[in-house]
Amino acid sequence: MASDEECPNGEDRDVDLNSFLCPKSIAIVGASATPGVVGYNFVANLIDGNFPGSIFPVKSGMKEVCGIRAYPDMASVPDDVELAVLATHPSQVPSLIRQCGPKGVKAAIVAAAGFADVGHEGKKLEEAVLDAAKEQGIRIMGPNTQGLINGKSTILSVPFRANLQRGSGVSFICQTGFFYWDWISRSSHVGLCKAVDLGNMCDVSHADVLEHLGNDPETRVIAMHIEGIRKGREFLDVAGRVTKRKPVIALKAGRTDKGAGAIASHTGSLVGDDAVYNAAFRQAGITRAIDMNELVDFVRVFACLSSLPKGNRVAVVTFSGAGGSLAADACSEFGLDMATLSESTVQRVRKAFPSWATMGNPIDVLQAVKTDDMRLAYEEALEALSVDQNVDAIVVITVIGNLLHEFDILDILVEHTGTASRKPTVICPLRFDDGFERAAGLDLRGFTVFPTVRRAVKALAVAHARYEHLS
Amino acid sequence: MASDEECPNGEDRDVDLNSFLCPKSIAIVGASATPGVVGYNFVANLIDGNFPGSIFPVKSGMKEVCGIRAYPDMASVPDDVELAVLATHPSQVPSLIRQCGPKGVKAAIVAAAGFADVGHEGKKLEEAVLDAAKEQGIRIMGPNTQGLINGKSTILSVPFRANLQRGSGVSFICQTGFFYWDWISRSSHVGLCKAVDLGNMCDVSHADVLEHLGNDPETRVIAMHIEGIRKGREFLDVAGRVTKRKPVIALKAGRTDKGAGAIASHTGSLVGDDAVYNAAFRQAGITRAIDMNELVDFVRVFACLSSLPKGNRVAVVTFSGAGGSLAADACSEFGLDMATLSESTVQRVRKAFPSWATMGNPIDVLQAVKTDDMRLAYEEALEALSVDQNVDAIVVITVIGNLLHEFDILDILVEHTGTASRKPTVICPLRFDDGFERAAGLDLRGFTVFPTVRRAVKALAVAHARYEHLS
Repeated sequence: MASDEECPNGEDRDVDLNSFLCPKSIAIVGASATPGVVGYNFVANLIDGNFPGSIFPVKSGMKEVCGIRAYPDMASVPDDVELAVLATHPSQVPSLIRQCGPKGVKAAIVAAAGFADVGHEGKKLEEAVLDAAKEQGIRIMGPNTQGLINGKSTILSVPFRANLQRGSGVSFICQTGFFYWDWISRSSHVGLCKAVDLGNMCDVSHADVLEHLGNDPETRVIAMHIEGIRKGREFLDVAGRVTKRKPVIALKAGRTDKGAGAIASHTGSLVGDDAVYNAAFRQAGITRAIDMNELVDFVRVFACLSSLPKGNRVAVVTFSGAGGSLAADACSEFGLDMATLSESTVQRVRKAFPSWATMGNPIDVLQAVKTDDMRLAYEEALEALSVDQNVDAIVVITVIGNLLHEFDILDILVEHTGTASRKPTVICPLRFDDGFERAAGLDLRGFTVFPTVRRAVKALAVAHARYEHLS
Repeated sequence: MASDEECPNGEDRDVDLNSFLCPKSIAIVGASATPGVVGYNFVANLIDGNFPGSIFPVKSGMKEVCGIRAYPDMASVPDDVELAVLATHPSQVPSLIRQCGPKGVKAAIVAAAGFADVGHEGKKLEEAVLDAAKEQGIRIMGPNTQGLINGKSTILSVPFRANLQRGSGVSFICQTGFFYWDWISRSSHVGLCKAVDLGNMCDVSHADVLEHLGNDPETRVIAMHIEGIRKGREFLDVAGRVTKRKPVIALKAGRTDKGAGAIASHTGSLVGDDAVYNAAFRQAGITRAIDMNELVDFVRVFACLSSLPKGNRVAVVTFSGAGGSLAADACSEFGLDMATLSESTVQRVRKAFPSWATMGNPIDVLQAVKTDDMRLAYEEALEALSVDQNVDAIVVITVIGNLLHEFDILDILVEHTGTASRKPTVICPLRFDDGFERAAGLDLRGFTVFPTVRRAVKALAVAHARYEHLS
């Protein structure tokens, strides 16, 4: 991590970021009437999202943008402006910021790339932006940012066509829009609460937004994409406090020299030693994800699972013995134990199985295929496990959709895994026909669905580690 | 691995498995008229799949099953039978096999569980089955198997409702149906050629089927699920020969003690030391997958990629700088290099970018957003890379569906990555709207699509390792 001395920006200023996330009025400087262009997208997204405040497109020589009256410059805007979005050439940004001060602007999003991301000259320009901002008392997000999302109020440089659920309380802090777009593309049913693209991060930093989201009552889970951290000590201090209240999952890029090199030309961030990050994240209670699959898996387990596993004893209910052995392998790999089922569970479950069936953990419900009553086997197994004192979490490996079962496994899961004090339960389904869509519904019922057994068990281990961290 | 001495079965017998995969006539002993029951599913699947040979349901007291005439016992069947499917209680199997011999049966699938998978008594019963089979000159698949798939001729104990493409030449050898069902649920557009569930594997073994599929002109890629190997030396000998012609990918369960324990009650296999497997697989040229994601990823890269990367120099074209740094990280992690682009590539690509853009690898096409011509940036980058002598493979990180591009990235990929001597190209898309479905089409055009950058790069590394193995 870069030391505090190297990154002296913004240290004394307010971390209330409401002027970015919930401004009363926005000026888009460099607005455009050409669809697809950044200066058009910002205006169009605000209109599409029914932004409740005032929108002021600013562009010399234009009368209107997207049906809204435009102004030739900031000075002509007839009212105070809380947030300025600067969608212009990089070289114009410092003087524009000086024009923002007199209009009462508190926050500015600098969209353009071409600053610290392109080397020494750009770095100097970025410093000029920051000087102007300090002089005017304006906080800067970016440069080189797509902007941000706060529910339907999307202040974004790209077309926004996703339909968001906000219920899950999942918020993203990134140095790119890539990650929250990926989240939206995979997990739109789980939803997105807030998302911020910090870009080059010349002022507003991970620490600032983490602090803000830590206090945000709508945010329950925080996902981060990190290329480099500024003000490392402050960040870890904030993270240490926030992770006591909310899970924070971080994907740190630049794990290797080649990755760090690519970052230099992306956001110009200083990358730092990966081992240092590992140790610091662990100490601050941050869960580290190695790729987008893990980021999404860990966010989902925290956002969706009914509760954290209080211990490491896992019971497996499976329609496939092979799946059971994969689950046992994964438990060993990730530090969980295969539970020793209580005698009452074994007695109860045995009744649903043929006499020759092996009773133990995993519970292989396919063995009940000869009794023609796999449904009963699932029901008895799930009900018994939900009250078994030797079991802290349940893995269910099953089929959703039209293949093996003549009954609806989703109903059984919802009805028979307990409700009031449900054991944390993850599901690994083979999905057929409408199984993909229907499995997504389980995420909203207190379960979490994973594409492989190993990923399900790893996410369960991560959830248990958080329980331990909080104890 | 179990030593040769422990597993003396089948060593002198024919490994021509056509009597299992392409029999002229099949008797289903224990046929049933009750939908959902194993003895019904076998008959119904054969009828649904328009099995071209003779079908003889056998069940005492039944006149017909699924509209086909049934017979009270094997002796009453009016013709010779090539394959017998035994869908009966385990205890009946040895005597039924003795009844099969006089009918000319060459192969028998024993569906029931309750043999070596349930301990000592079951193990003895399994030995009795094998004794009867040797006496009658009949090969046994199972016990404890779902059966097999050969295109539309599905000889399976579970309802078969999937629609298969067979073009890819992907075949599966498993000790469960779990894995090829999973493949079908995720990759039905890529297709399945043949699939065999070996179950407890008392006779027909991984080595036998591997040899058969190695010689099968329809099979191009072989995926294996292994709980335990019998006749370890023979298996490695066969694998060493087959991997010279076709890629073989194996997921070995029982990596840990807990996993091995679960296997004992699944197929009763002897698991062996995991480190021994690792070394043996490497020597035999088998690609090892750690979970279902890797199994599917590696199978797809071999089945779909236009060619193997001849070197380890990777070029990255990305709409997201963040994706570029993840790709560089993954290249380092998996032993690939970020290519140094040739000067002619840099010159050509530069024209499509604004003057301030950083030119190098990764090529960040989003920088061209200011020129309003990202399409040109993609086109120039992909065309230049396809003839760049410094580049062995291409990773494209892009958006498919209605988000960022006003043009169709799929057209550009197909048109501009070269055709005659296309560089191996993997795609990591963010998918929106119909992007999931459309991305699947790329798998059939010589690309391979992956859900994350890290998985794409790892699969590319695996494909390059195979090139090295063959050189």
